[in-house]
Amino acid sequence: MPSSEPSSLNDHAERLARVHLRELIQDPQRNEQLRHRVGPLLVDLSRQALDGAALQALGEALEATGWQQVRDAMFAGEAINRSEGRAVLHTALRASGSRLPSPAPAEIRHEIEQTLQKIERLVTALHAGEGASYGLPTTVTDVVHIGIGGSDLGPRLAVHALYRYRRPHTRVHFLTNVDGQTVHDLLAGLDPRRSLVIIASKSFNTQETQLNANALRTWIARAYDGDDRKVARHFLAVTARPEAALAWGVPEAHIYPMWDYVGGRTSLWSAVGLVTALAMGMEHFRALLAGAARMDDHFRSTEWSQNLPVLLAMVDHWNRNLKGYGSRAVLAYADLLRDFTPYLQQLEMESLGKSTGHDGEPLAGQTGPVVWGGVGTNAQHAYFQALHQGTDIVPVEFIALIRPDHPLHANHDALLSNVLGQAATLALGRSREQALAEPARLPEGLSAEALAAQRELPGNRPSTIILLDELTPQTLGSLIALYEHKVFVLGHWWGLNAYDQWGVEPGKALARQIAAVLDAEATDLEGFDPATRALIQDIQDRREG
Amino acid sequence: MPSSEPSSLNDHAERLARVHLRELIQDPQRNEQLRHRVGPLLVDLSRQALDGAALQALGEALEATGWQQVRDAMFAGEAINRSEGRAVLHTALRASGSRLPSPAPAEIRHEIEQTLQKIERLVTALHAGEGASYGLPTTVTDVVHIGIGGSDLGPRLAVHALYRYRRPHTRVHFLTNVDGQTVHDLLAGLDPRRSLVIIASKSFNTQETQLNANALRTWIARAYDGDDRKVARHFLAVTARPEAALAWGVPEAHIYPMWDYVGGRTSLWSAVGLVTALAMGMEHFRALLAGAARMDDHFRSTEWSQNLPVLLAMVDHWNRNLKGYGSRAVLAYADLLRDFTPYLQQLEMESLGKSTGHDGEPLAGQTGPVVWGGVGTNAQHAYFQALHQGTDIVPVEFIALIRPDHPLHANHDALLSNVLGQAATLALGRSREQALAEPARLPEGLSAEALAAQRELPGNRPSTIILLDELTPQTLGSLIALYEHKVFVLGHWWGLNAYDQWGVEPGKALARQIAAVLDAEATDLEGFDPATRALIQDIQDRREG
Repeated sequence: MPSSEPSSLNDHAERLARVHLRELIQDPQRNEQLRHRVGPLLVDLSRQALDGAALQALGEALEATGWQQVRDAMFAGEAINRSEGRAVLHTALRASGSRLPSPAPAEIRHEIEQTLQKIERLVTALHAGEGASYGLPTTVTDVVHIGIGGSDLGPRLAVHALYRYRRPHTRVHFLTNVDGQTVHDLLAGLDPRRSLVIIASKSFNTQETQLNANALRTWIARAYDGDDRKVARHFLAVTARPEAALAWGVPEAHIYPMWDYVGGRTSLWSAVGLVTALAMGMEHFRALLAGAARMDDHFRSTEWSQNLPVLLAMVDHWNRNLKGYGSRAVLAYADLLRDFTPYLQQLEMESLGKSTGHDGEPLAGQTGPVVWGGVGTNAQHAYFQALHQGTDIVPVEFIALIRPDHPLHANHDALLSNVLGQAATLALGRSREQALAEPARLPEGLSAEALAAQRELPGNRPSTIILLDELTPQTLGSLIALYEHKVFVLGHWWGLNAYDQWGVEPGKALARQIAAVLDAEATDLEGFDPATRALIQDIQDRREG
Repeated sequence: MPSSEPSSLNDHAERLARVHLRELIQDPQRNEQLRHRVGPLLVDLSRQALDGAALQALGEALEATGWQQVRDAMFAGEAINRSEGRAVLHTALRASGSRLPSPAPAEIRHEIEQTLQKIERLVTALHAGEGASYGLPTTVTDVVHIGIGGSDLGPRLAVHALYRYRRPHTRVHFLTNVDGQTVHDLLAGLDPRRSLVIIASKSFNTQETQLNANALRTWIARAYDGDDRKVARHFLAVTARPEAALAWGVPEAHIYPMWDYVGGRTSLWSAVGLVTALAMGMEHFRALLAGAARMDDHFRSTEWSQNLPVLLAMVDHWNRNLKGYGSRAVLAYADLLRDFTPYLQQLEMESLGKSTGHDGEPLAGQTGPVVWGGVGTNAQHAYFQALHQGTDIVPVEFIALIRPDHPLHANHDALLSNVLGQAATLALGRSREQALAEPARLPEGLSAEALAAQRELPGNRPSTIILLDELTPQTLGSLIALYEHKVFVLGHWWGLNAYDQWGVEPGKALARQIAAVLDAEATDLEGFDPATRALIQDIQDRREG
């Protein structure tokens, strides 16, 4: 256990290491203390290896950091992203849905509301078939949203999760990767004259997005014999560099802003969400914002012991820094939430995968773990074997819906009962005696004891269950904001800047140099390391072969 | 480092811990020794923290285990799945494509070939529009494949990866999860009279598959006013329990076998692959088998130092047991391979996520790590930040294609150059001095040194690059078989049974008991633990609310 933890926390970890979860969960009063409801969200932490005393120690450790002050500084627009000298104001994007007054600067709230109204006018016009009055094609059957990372994962999650709220007659496609196969296959199924393209790129210089946007412009231009004016009608841009979008060929009226005070991984709530509003209508986009704002209010106004994002952060801190677990599995038991784990991977790992503090000094302990997972029950038939019997412990987070929006109730009960069954089995395990008592065919040459040992499950494996009453724009907004604020708390607690991402640039820069060689624009390999050189040569040989 | 490792391996690990990868890769001769080609596959291990001496020590440690003898026993059909007393003969399924003579029992090879021919007759008839002569609907526009885990992941991977080989006029849908929302939304877009349903379930008793199959039967029966004979034409089954399929309503001639000597996670090559053959034609399914058979031949006949599956296993062993890394990220830089990581998650984690040996004794060291990842370059914009600057080291495996099958060459060069750029940057890092020399805006109150420290990348992070000349049935078959055999070697080395999965049953059994309560078939909560009881009550309250 890292020496940087307060000794009382280490004492609690040592004490609890001697108690099996099977015993901890026998105490209904303890369980009650670890189960919290905020509106339509239930967070059940009772299967974590914690009790009231340990939780109290965690609370005291966190309180000693003065986290509320930094939280309030974030909401007020202070430059808490210190390495970039920027404010962190994704919460201002949804402040209109808050019950608490927003402390964000008035001029920022004003420009946000202006942008929302601009989005609303566009969406309303398009849905009414009046796009032409906004310089858009009269009939739009397909919207292609081009973006990657934060410009893709949030809108993709929202559009897919809220599929039941979709507007009819508009298909939405997400074009993300620079893989030309996907561009090629997508365009084969679309009509260029009825397609609307949104280019979402903060810098308007992202390699993948630029190449894909160029491919779509070429394809649409072919349909109009290169008439630039007609081609331009098909493009919208969301960017912090409107001049670059304009130069590329997007009409000025079709350009929506991104701001320095909103990071890519929290840009879902900004004009990057335009595609979400197009897919399901402005009222549902506003409801998504309002759901997040409700969680903002809760986070701003609730003491730590009842504060959901804070409690999730405490559990993560416990599992990471006191127990030493290297990863966390997030399992949505809802196909509509299939993009939730990928979304969280970015939100958490890009924010918390750091090892240097604000002051440039190395951090003392482990930070952001690997976040992985997928959809249940599929996962049960794939990697739950390792979760139950592997040598490493992986904390699991289950997310499920109480009320489905379809008539197949037997299916839904099966889905939900598997969440509870797996979480309980992770905690309880199956003893050697149970394994012996439950029949299994004994193969030749194997003793009953040796077989039972292989059928034993150790249990004592922690999990969290999050239940949404149902999947709506509001509950999805609250769920995402819950994790955003958890990330804030952990970043603050670990002493790192959760809002920069300095690790991602060098590899991209090197890739551009290598691409120049692959394109045969450059031939000098001397600047590359020997392993890279050898591989470039191999690729060139095989291309000719 | 675990004491179970030979001391010479520990010595090499200690020695190499003092050498940065940046230095190791300067030696072209070493790099050459770590880069291997077998036909259209290149495996480049030169960015792993190994050198020739360490590799030699690993080779000697493995050779001392007598792995070849167990390998040959597997190919010959001995019961190496000892806890279930079963042979492990997925290699026999593709033996027809081998150059080496198959040591599998002749009667088994015969029944496999009979089944392949039965599949071929069906596929040929359907593609010729002559399904009616096989008791199938005359026109089939949509095939729905119902299966989960091994009955889903392999066919899904093959059908999606080999999309360019698809037969026209037949859409394929994979129905996996028990989530009724997906069933409901899928059926809304299909014509029951033109849909063919494949039910793939070894036991014909898998909860998810049964519920989904029932939902589809109800839907099709409605289209025929419940005429059972007409309904039956729409169903095929792949199962080890034909009597159960028959009783459910699948005509005998529509039932294809599964065998005890093929595990779910290697069943892609069996009749579970029927949907693959339907999607792309028998010749391509046979080519997939042949590609795997080529890797079988290589694995059977090559000494360890040139044997690709063995070398991959050695690297995994090194990273897991000598370096202590808890997870491995697998990144396919090809959208068509988006299902490859999920496929590997099952193959590796269900096989190797064990902590008990054949004899029932606990294993000494760590076994199968978490396998996670996804598609690049998307991943670069999501979690590569943590791979470059996080506190934990995660070995990365890159998979990419040299020659694309589309005309967007600039896109493909961008894709490929990012593989090389990221792998090099993981190894090399960016020094403090480089960070200082490369300009970045210095925010108020921050020293240039503190900023550079945050922009520094430590490097020394290992990766493997696997390049396929192109994506074809043959290369995909070889790639999958490469990993299957790697899993064999690791399972043998760690002393565990890679072919059982005792950990998955208890949670499912408990879920069935909980479902009975949620369905209100049962009301007694006394059998459940207090945390489960409380949550069931909460769910019931919210359903009424």
